[in-house]
Parts: sequence; C-alpha cells; structure tokens
Amino acid sequence: MIQANTPYDILIKIIKEKHKQLPTIMKEKGIDCWLIFVRETSVNPDPIMNQIIGGDIVWQSAFIFAFDGDKFTKTAIVGDFDALAEESKGIWDTVIPYKEGISIPLKELFREINPSKIALNYSEDSVVSDGLSHGMYLKLTSILSDKKDLFVSAYPIIQALRGRKTKKEIELVTKACEITEEINRKMTKLIKIGMSEIEIQKMFHKEMDKYGVKEAWQRISCPAVDVGPDKEFGHVNPLPNLKTKKGHTLHNDFGVKINGYCSDLQRMWFFGSEDEIPKELKHAFETVYNAITKAAEYIKPGVTGFSVDKIARDYVKSQGYEEYAHALGHQIGTNAHDGGVLLGPLWERYGEITKGIVEEGNIFTLELYLKTKNYGMVSLEENIVVTKDGCRFLVPRSRKFITIEEF
Amino acid sequence: MIQANTPYDILIKIIKEKHKQLPTIMKEKGIDCWLIFVRETSVNPDPIMNQIIGGDIVWQSAFIFAFDGDKFTKTAIVGDFDALAEESKGIWDTVIPYKEGISIPLKELFREINPSKIALNYSEDSVVSDGLSHGMYLKLTSILSDKKDLFVSAYPIIQALRGRKTKKEIELVTKACEITEEINRKMTKLIKIGMSEIEIQKMFHKEMDKYGVKEAWQRISCPAVDVGPDKEFGHVNPLPNLKTKKGHTLHNDFGVKINGYCSDLQRMWFFGSEDEIPKELKHAFETVYNAITKAAEYIKPGVTGFSVDKIARDYVKSQGYEEYAHALGHQIGTNAHDGGVLLGPLWERYGEITKGIVEEGNIFTLELYLKTKNYGMVSLEENIVVTKDGCRFLVPRSRKFITIEEF
Repeated sequence: MIQANTPYDILIKIIKEKHKQLPTIMKEKGIDCWLIFVRETSVNPDPIMNQIIGGDIVWQSAFIFAFDGDKFTKTAIVGDFDALAEESKGIWDTVIPYKEGISIPLKELFREINPSKIALNYSEDSVVSDGLSHGMYLKLTSILSDKKDLFVSAYPIIQALRGRKTKKEIELVTKACEITEEINRKMTKLIKIGMSEIEIQKMFHKEMDKYGVKEAWQRISCPAVDVGPDKEFGHVNPLPNLKTKKGHTLHNDFGVKINGYCSDLQRMWFFGSEDEIPKELKHAFETVYNAITKAAEYIKPGVTGFSVDKIARDYVKSQGYEEYAHALGHQIGTNAHDGGVLLGPLWERYGEITKGIVEEGNIFTLELYLKTKNYGMVSLEENIVVTKDGCRFLVPRSRKFITIEEF
Repeated sequence: MIQANTPYDILIKIIKEKHKQLPTIMKEKGIDCWLIFVRETSVNPDPIMNQIIGGDIVWQSAFIFAFDGDKFTKTAIVGDFDALAEESKGIWDTVIPYKEGISIPLKELFREINPSKIALNYSEDSVVSDGLSHGMYLKLTSILSDKKDLFVSAYPIIQALRGRKTKKEIELVTKACEITEEINRKMTKLIKIGMSEIEIQKMFHKEMDKYGVKEAWQRISCPAVDVGPDKEFGHVNPLPNLKTKKGHTLHNDFGVKINGYCSDLQRMWFFGSEDEIPKELKHAFETVYNAITKAAEYIKPGVTGFSVDKIARDYVKSQGYEEYAHALGHQIGTNAHDGGVLLGPLWERYGEITKGIVEEGNIFTLELYLKTKNYGMVSLEENIVVTKDGCRFLVPRSRKFITIEEF
C-alpha cells in the first residue's frame, strides 16, 4: 500500500519538475492563466492533482498559475485548515487562506492578474483533463461571472504536462515494468496444468502483496487471466471453471503500481513444448509481434496518434485477420490509462484525442489481439517511451510464447 | 487493503438494498429518470458508483433508472468490453453493449423512455452529488441536445440514497467505530511521555496495518495527532518536534475504513492523574461534552441541519468560548465526509446543504473544538445514527480525558 503510492518526497520532487515545465508549456499553448478549482479531493479528486498539487484538500480550493507579463506566479487559495499543509510543500509563491468562503479572495486575485484566458480542467475527450465537476463549473461561473467568456479547456496544457514524462517519471514506470516481468517470471515456475483462472490470479495477488506493490487498475481484473479457447475476451474477471490444459494458451494483462507509477503489459504462455505449438497460434503470435514492430519502427515525435494505429491495423487486416476492437496504444503514468494523445482509430468514442501529436517523453502501450479459429485470442502488450527520433522499449519485448511443460 | 474495501459480495448486497430504496426516493422527489454518465472511473470516479453501480468501467457508460408509468427499469449502456462484468452483477434489467460510440444507443433509449425530467449528478454544494464532470456534461448536451432542458440536479436523490443508511451499512460503520476504539485503547497502553507526534502516528499506522484496515482519509493526517499547547490546530500533519509532556494533552482525529465504510472519532488524553488535570482543561472538556449532549438530545428526523449546529454553537458561546470554525457534524459512510445534509452554520462555503432536513438512518459526526488559554485545544468527536425519534451513539461516548500515568 505505502510503497504503491508515491512517497511524499518523490511526489514533491516530481511536482517541482512539473512546475518547471509549466511556463514553457503555457507559453507554447498561448494560455496565460490556468485555474484548478477543487474541493474534498479525497471524495472527488481531479486526476491532475498528483502531478501539480499533491495531497488532498478539504474545502473549495483554487490553484492559479498565471503570467503577469513575463513573471510567472503560482498561488493557492485554500480553507484555513488546509493552509499550513500547502505552505509546507514549498511549491507556491503565495498561499491565501480563507475562513467563510472562497469567492472574495478568488475575485480579488482575478481582478489583480486580469488574464486574457482562463484555462479550466474540462474536456469532452480526455478523462485526465476533465477533473472539474459540472457543479464546480457552475459555482465558478457565478463567482467569476464577468470573466466566464475567458474560460477555455486546459486540455492542451494537461496533455503536454502529463505526456512529457520527466526523467524521474520514466525511471518509475520502467521500475514498474521490471517488477511486472519479475512477477511474471516467478509465476511461470508455479503455474501448472489444471489450475483455474481464479487460482492463477490469486497467486499473482499473493506475489504482488509480497512485493508491496498495488494493482495498476481494479484488482478484480488485474491481472486479467484468460485461459484456453473458451474465454470471452475483454475487460472481464477470471472464472473458476476455466482451467489450464495441455495444448492451450494462458494470457494475462497485468500492471503494477509502484511509487505511484504504473506498468501495463500482456504476455502469453503455452502449455506444451515449443514444437507442439499449433501453426495457427504461431502465425497469430508472429502477426501480433510484427504489427507491434511496425508501429514501433514508425512512431516518433511529430506523427499523429491515429497514423501509428493505422500501421498496425492495416497490417493485421492484410494478414487476413479481423481488426482489433480497441486502440493500439494509450499513455501510461500515474494511471494505467494516463490520457493525452491516443494511438487509436478515428472512431466516435475516441473523439479528437487520436488526432493529437506524439511527443518526446510520451510513454505508450503498444497492444493488440487477434482471434484464432481454434485456440482463442492471441494478445501482447509492450510499453515504450518516445525518444528524440523514435522509441525505446522499457523492458525486453516478448518474442515468443512462454512455454510451460510438465514432466 | 483487501479488507479495507467492500468485498464484492457485500458490495452487491448493499447495491441491491440501495436499488430497492430507489423507486420510492425518485417518486418522493418527483424525478422519473436518473442518468449516471461516466467513463474511465478508475481515473475519474463518480462518488456514487459504489452505492449504485459497483466496480469500475472503462468506456463512456450510461446507467439509467427510469419510470415508464409505474414500471421501474434499470438499464446499463456500456462498451462491449465492460458488458459481461455488468451482466454478471445481476442488478440491471438490460445491459446494452456498444462498440464504436455510445451516442446512438443512448439517443434511442431516451426516445423510448421519453422522461419528463433527467436527473444528472451535478451540485454546487454537495461534492458526493457532483460526480458528472463538466466535459461529460458538454458531451451529454450534444448527444441529447433535444432533451437538455429536462436536465435537473440529482442531488435530492443522491442525498436521500446515501443518507438513508441500510441496516447493513449501519452495521459496517459501527464495526469501523469499534475497531477505531479498540486501536485507541491499545495505543493508550503504549503511548509514553516524550514521544513525538510522528512516532505516535507511526504506532497507529502499524496497528492499522496489523488489523488490515485502511485510513478513513489521507494517511498523512489519519490519525491526526496533536500534542500539547503549541500545535497549530487543523487538518495538518504530525510534527517531529512536538513531544508529549507531563501535564499536557494528546488529541487524535482518527477513522478507519473497513469493508468500505468509515469511522471518524476524536479522543483526548492527559499525561498525569485524574486530579492533576487543570481546571481550565476540565472546563473546556465538559463544555465540549455538554455541547455534544445538547445537540444529540435535540437531533431527530425532521429538523434542519443548521438548527442542530446552532444548539451546540450557541451553548459554547454562552460559556465564554470562541465559536468553532467548522460544522458540528457531517455524515459518514463510504467516505469519512459522506455528503448530504450537514450540521453546520449558514456560511457561504456550506451553500444550501446546512438547510437540509435530518432523516432516519443518517449517520452523523458530532464534533467541536474549544481553545484554552494555556493548554491548546480540547476537541471531541462522536458518531451517531439518527433513529425514529432521536439518535443513538454508535459506540460509547468519551466521558473524560483518558489519563496516561507513568510510574
């Protein structure tokens, strides 16, 4: 539990790195003021809190990043009970405490800074940029009623800020990937023919608890464990009646959270020896593997999200397979689904975010599944970081089925 | 961690109890349709999820409770990967899966049910009723553009639904209170003169980990530990340099989460014997104790939130103390701050929620602090459930300082 969340000193370190990125990003996006407006964040958090504020606040609070000419200022307006905690972080130029209500100090501050735009955390397409609740939006439009025409979405800021991972952040995601693979390797020695999906998931959970790491998404489907040809594919829980069998596959979709940062990897096992793997399975595996290779060779700063997805999607279709019903890749960070540009098709449910531009420092998954006729799904997922002119896999790729033989 | 969250079977049991309460509440509030619209709830959850849906969903999802004449229907529209999980809960009449986008099935459903109002989860005053993000609100107004005049706040439904605790819920909060007091009693034997606030908090954390319970709010201030006269009061973390001393007090604000439900209690210790307690401290303690008694004797179904606060507030002022700078009581449940009617003054930051009506089954804290001149703060907090004609304390009250003597 403790080790799963970001320790306070690392959190403050990352927040300071993020605060340093901010003036450049805001200038680049042409936004001179960003307002984060939250309350009772333990009940209803804003997904950006851990990158830019850290810790919870109780009363209505406003965090304002603004340019006054070339001077960049960072202000927190918080309930008086929250003021000491904010001051002790050492990340704000000014902490303004209030007792009865936030409206007077908030109005005063905005009279002073008088920005040309006010970026707020709302977005139709990006969940991590959508931390402002509708009720808080209404409250804000009544407090700053003379400024509401200045409101714009903070999506451009948040996308860049979350997406451009700092050195420390890349280090933490890599660590999470390494632990994931370490647990996968340990499990390979323990998984036997005849075990159910539920039993296998329990073994993973036990090992995760030993490591003191947390699941990267809800525990009931982390790891997802899928056995043999009869499993309905998707974000679905393990079943007690599906059991591993010689000649069949095992698939997991597994990520851990360590120091607040996530991994998200998929691996495939085969029960039998290398040369017992059916042709159909081998072909599907190679197709998935090659599709990921092609996407990884293509991706670099400056390309659009959907164009990366298209490389892999076109390839699997050219090999005679049905296209996968999801995006090729999402960003990972403090969340397994970290928002920002998505490597996905131009479908309604992805809105505008697959049209975004890939940047250096983005960490993406590359993942896809294929259906086979007789052996169920074959699916892999890798984690990459976008470099100056390409990408790098955070941990060694999965090159073939992991075989489990019993003697 | 595991025991801290609601186990799946208890969660589904509570959700079924809540679904049963719903038709009555919706009729009472004159609302024929309630729509919960969410996505990626592991990143940006709606605080009502655990009462009414349970578990996380990935893609944009709509959960619709609606009357068609007298027939009450419950429908889930979810991404196809989430469909099996929803079906397996056994709480929906219909689960409608989609692949590319939610807009077509959502529009179709609303053409069919054609409600007179559509309640959405937004509220300026109640954080737990404000789970709809502003971006999702915008998306909804574009999908249901011909129905947006029907949108109303779901606050009346959510307040009643969360506030009217079921038998199982009262049992779970009581259990959390009992464990909290059990840990307090164990700690009483271990706390020594000369320990720092940090050391004492660490001892609490160790014991919580042994029990497998989680902190009811952020760990860094749960329990809050305040030692002696020099501590600045509030939601602030323990300090390494403040140490317990003979003749001084120790205060904690402590709650645990067990099976998903919280406690929130404050207790006071004195380092010395009963007859060494200074008059000033005794008087403050008795005043806090009496103020809670008066509020508890007054509260019953039908009274307003602010009127309960006023009883205690007026009393402490009549005794010559400065009034406490917060509300007398908030509801507790799956969150330490569970929303709904608040027992607080008519201050701007509390908006309309202190004007709400207390109902049977509501679980409240009764808490207040007083400043003494020489010994710091004296503060107590109890947890009560509102009964048919009054209230009941969930665990025995704190009647005096817990004394710690060393020989």
